[in-house]
Amino acid sequence: MKQSLGAKTLVYPTPVFVVGTFDANGKANVMTAAWGGICCSQPPCVAVSLRKATYTHGNIVARKAFTISIPSESHVRLADHFGLVSGRNVDKFAVSGLTPVKSELVDAPYVKEFPLIIECRLVHIFELGLHTQFVGEVMDVKAEESVMRAGRLVDIKKVKPLSFAPDTQEYYGIGDCLGKAFSIGEKL
Amino acid sequence: MKQSLGAKTLVYPTPVFVVGTFDANGKANVMTAAWGGICCSQPPCVAVSLRKATYTHGNIVARKAFTISIPSESHVRLADHFGLVSGRNVDKFAVSGLTPVKSELVDAPYVKEFPLIIECRLVHIFELGLHTQFVGEVMDVKAEESVMRAGRLVDIKKVKPLSFAPDTQEYYGIGDCLGKAFSIGEKL
Repeated sequence: MKQSLGAKTLVYPTPVFVVGTFDANGKANVMTAAWGGICCSQPPCVAVSLRKATYTHGNIVARKAFTISIPSESHVRLADHFGLVSGRNVDKFAVSGLTPVKSELVDAPYVKEFPLIIECRLVHIFELGLHTQFVGEVMDVKAEESVMRAGRLVDIKKVKPLSFAPDTQEYYGIGDCLGKAFSIGEKL
Repeated sequence: MKQSLGAKTLVYPTPVFVVGTFDANGKANVMTAAWGGICCSQPPCVAVSLRKATYTHGNIVARKAFTISIPSESHVRLADHFGLVSGRNVDKFAVSGLTPVKSELVDAPYVKEFPLIIECRLVHIFELGLHTQFVGEVMDVKAEESVMRAGRLVDIKKVKPLSFAPDTQEYYGIGDCLGKAFSIGEKL
């Protein structure tokens, strides 16, 4: 029996993206966002939605670029912190001890210590309400060698990305592999 | 040391959404999509991106509505199958034995047997390239009582949603709880 829970932002799972930008003074900033995901295969694009009140929102509009750094389980405190404080008041790289790396492809920094990086140039801004959706074209993906399998594929069990559960407001890790896509369901 | 992997659609994790629609004859259809996520809090909106070639794409344009049914781990074969065959040729509800339920709120069906349902009315269509992004306003979320905690919150460990790993093309379950959001990172 299903219960009606009303209109709310609830899907499972949602990602934990650490969005990197430069401000007007060139200071590197990061913020955490869970409203986003891949939105196109050709050109490869990623969407991330931010409230206008965030420091990152203005940075993306001005610089027309952002990165997504994917934190591992060991970075869960840092990822949460980056969603709690504003780059207006705090140098989040300084307080965290993480290292900003200036992308050579887009006008934005990424987190050196995080295992998986997506570098994006801004291609669309969609005003949806409280949130603005930024669509970035992926210019490159970078991964630590330590999270790769043979064949240059990125192993999610080595990345150990976080998922955010909106309803209970908790972070979760990734579980077991359940099967090969485009294969396990060939025969029902 | 980071390796450059080129421009591609790779973030971890991505969700596994089973998108429900009616076709022009009122036949209920489902397809699986991993390019999507929450995109706005007020109004609550969810985005899902589909290729124009899909049957579901035309259904959403015509009916201006869709649902998202979140499959559990036990539904992994069905979820994969729904991404392998087209509703043009196959009655996916009939072959799967699942039950379509007509939403009372939007002009689309959902999967009775899946634990978590999001009912959406179409509010935006964004052409991004190979994929069209459909933004739906969430009109209601419905969940099985069996996946809820006290206090009407949906427990991700009871839903057991799937994640899709794009690079290795595999499905994964949800792992352990790693902490409370907006809390664990208050002190670094």
